[in-house]
Amino acid sequence: MAPPFTREEYTDRLNRVRTRMQELGFDGLVIGDPANINWLTGYDAWSFYTPQIMVVGLEVDPTWIGREMDAGAAKFTTYLPEEQVIPFPETLVQQPDVHPAQFMADWMRGKGFDGKRIGYESDVYFLTPAAVDHLRAGLPNSQWADCALLVNWQRLTKSSAEIAMIAQASVIAGHAMQTAYDGVRPGVRQCDLMAEIVAAQIRGAPEFGGDMTALHPLVLAGEAASTAHPMWTDTPFAADQTIAFELGGCRKRYNAGLARTVHLGTPPETLLTTAEAVGEGMEAVLDAMRAGVPCCDVHAAWQAVLDRYGLEKKSRIGYSIGLGYSPDWGEHTISFRPDDRTLLPTDAVVHIILGMWMDGWGMELSETVHVRESDAVCLTQFPRDVHVIDI
Amino acid sequence: MAPPFTREEYTDRLNRVRTRMQELGFDGLVIGDPANINWLTGYDAWSFYTPQIMVVGLEVDPTWIGREMDAGAAKFTTYLPEEQVIPFPETLVQQPDVHPAQFMADWMRGKGFDGKRIGYESDVYFLTPAAVDHLRAGLPNSQWADCALLVNWQRLTKSSAEIAMIAQASVIAGHAMQTAYDGVRPGVRQCDLMAEIVAAQIRGAPEFGGDMTALHPLVLAGEAASTAHPMWTDTPFAADQTIAFELGGCRKRYNAGLARTVHLGTPPETLLTTAEAVGEGMEAVLDAMRAGVPCCDVHAAWQAVLDRYGLEKKSRIGYSIGLGYSPDWGEHTISFRPDDRTLLPTDAVVHIILGMWMDGWGMELSETVHVRESDAVCLTQFPRDVHVIDI
Repeated sequence: MAPPFTREEYTDRLNRVRTRMQELGFDGLVIGDPANINWLTGYDAWSFYTPQIMVVGLEVDPTWIGREMDAGAAKFTTYLPEEQVIPFPETLVQQPDVHPAQFMADWMRGKGFDGKRIGYESDVYFLTPAAVDHLRAGLPNSQWADCALLVNWQRLTKSSAEIAMIAQASVIAGHAMQTAYDGVRPGVRQCDLMAEIVAAQIRGAPEFGGDMTALHPLVLAGEAASTAHPMWTDTPFAADQTIAFELGGCRKRYNAGLARTVHLGTPPETLLTTAEAVGEGMEAVLDAMRAGVPCCDVHAAWQAVLDRYGLEKKSRIGYSIGLGYSPDWGEHTISFRPDDRTLLPTDAVVHIILGMWMDGWGMELSETVHVRESDAVCLTQFPRDVHVIDI
Repeated sequence: MAPPFTREEYTDRLNRVRTRMQELGFDGLVIGDPANINWLTGYDAWSFYTPQIMVVGLEVDPTWIGREMDAGAAKFTTYLPEEQVIPFPETLVQQPDVHPAQFMADWMRGKGFDGKRIGYESDVYFLTPAAVDHLRAGLPNSQWADCALLVNWQRLTKSSAEIAMIAQASVIAGHAMQTAYDGVRPGVRQCDLMAEIVAAQIRGAPEFGGDMTALHPLVLAGEAASTAHPMWTDTPFAADQTIAFELGGCRKRYNAGLARTVHLGTPPETLLTTAEAVGEGMEAVLDAMRAGVPCCDVHAAWQAVLDRYGLEKKSRIGYSIGLGYSPDWGEHTISFRPDDRTLLPTDAVVHIILGMWMDGWGMELSETVHVRESDAVCLTQFPRDVHVIDI
């Protein structure tokens, strides 16, 4: 086993992060997002449920600090030499009076970070307020500032190797959706169908295996279809249900999202009209998307179609997608909505998700899209129409 | 669909939390752990990847504040009346200049929390430093203090309905492990076997369906076996590998853990000796465990066996388990290790996990255990010996 990308690619990523650190005046970064840690070094393990950070300095090479029993994972998932893998003792795990972040602060002090300008990720899932408090207390002479999404923004533009990885994830997403289409019938329990779907995601393809998507696979059926992120149950699907599947595929933590809608029986007129609007909206979005276009203009193309149909959608219609761990595959940088004026870069990969959660029912249509210099192409390949199953 | 427990049980849980709040001098709590939110109200959705909290006051009833598109989930997963479900506008999601926690603070101020003593969960995954900073800024006259694991400690003692739920999860865990035993062979890709295993977890039983375990299912094979939490790959299993499976089952977010070890071929002597020690250790642990015993005494029973065999294990051997969302099924309260003097209460449920990550290989044995007044019984039921597969 080895990191999935070349050493040169990891070096390039680090250089981009360090350039940005210099621009923003940071001597060091405390990175808590496991996707950012992976992106910088390849580190991949389910170790982030105990405190884990990566420290990157202008003068200090990326160093993983985490639980002793997880340090071994760095050996076979990263290029990091031993001195850049710092295990904290098991005795620090989940104690009332001591915290692993105290150990982390000690290590940082030893590396000369006290008195320096340190940026930390203030709004990621696995770097907690307690951890940050301990870090600050242990380096009291440093200037601490939120580095916000510094690393995430570097991830927005993908390498060709990353795009190839998401293309593989997209193939897996197609298999998962086909499994959904093949199995969804009245009387089948949601959990039994989801079992087959998730198995298809994990199995992947003969040439490359799959991983679990960072976003929990979602099925919106019955009363749950009017809300965006319900958990599946063991209730059977029923005749005349509209069922939205928000699935996807994952390859080495790179995610592709794919959502489609099925109807069991004769589809009601409202579904067909909404689906027509959403399908046209997707075409309009894809036509509008290319490098240099602001995200809000892409949203405007969608809004124009929606207005014509007299429909409303309050939430954003997409975001940057890629490397991600549970619970989210979005990169938290760009969003397609009226107030995001970010210009799309070449080689962004975005998930356009047109979710319509109506009164008592819902439908979804999504694509994972590669933004190119003069156009945008879908990495996910699956028929877009509402799939009607005769019962 | 309805909450999985009776209204009385939720009322009892809330009363216990409020009693503890009074003892500790809190007027209000800000809860960020989705498992705690679920435990108090039943709320269940994959909505915690955007900011979401529950506010509990001595005078204010539990109120969910989260993203607009997820508010609908409260209708069919909780008993909460509409006024206790507060959606923040979609326009606040992942913005550079505004944060949902500002909206949350405004709501709390409107409910009279400014100037009050407020406890917040400082070390949970989904309440970020940025969110806490915004909350504090929005209620500048309040006294803010870490409430630590106030709710988690209330969860330590399970109701009989909760134990029944974990017993169902344990049945599922057995199905998952049997699937592993049936399918693991040299030449089978890890991902293909894990697909079948996870499908078994999700399918559950004919009488009750399964969910995805909060801890990612783990397979430790080849070089990855010397570390605790590797991710599966598409590498095929090979002859003469020792393979540890850390699986489990999940029923309505209640988790049971189950780990076992398989060897493909003739097991080496070191494996057999280690397995003998670990098996004896498990017996000693179960014999030592009952209500009123300190956690450290349970660990001492294990240590005595280990010493006799001249083996070493640095990490804790177990913890409280139950309701949990990704990434962890542990409750972060008690740990079985030399310095945890907590007395086990009646009706705790714990996961005893004897993981030995050796030089180049590893093995695991675990049980999910119900602590009773005068003994401890395994909820998981599966043969404990190392499973040898002739090849």
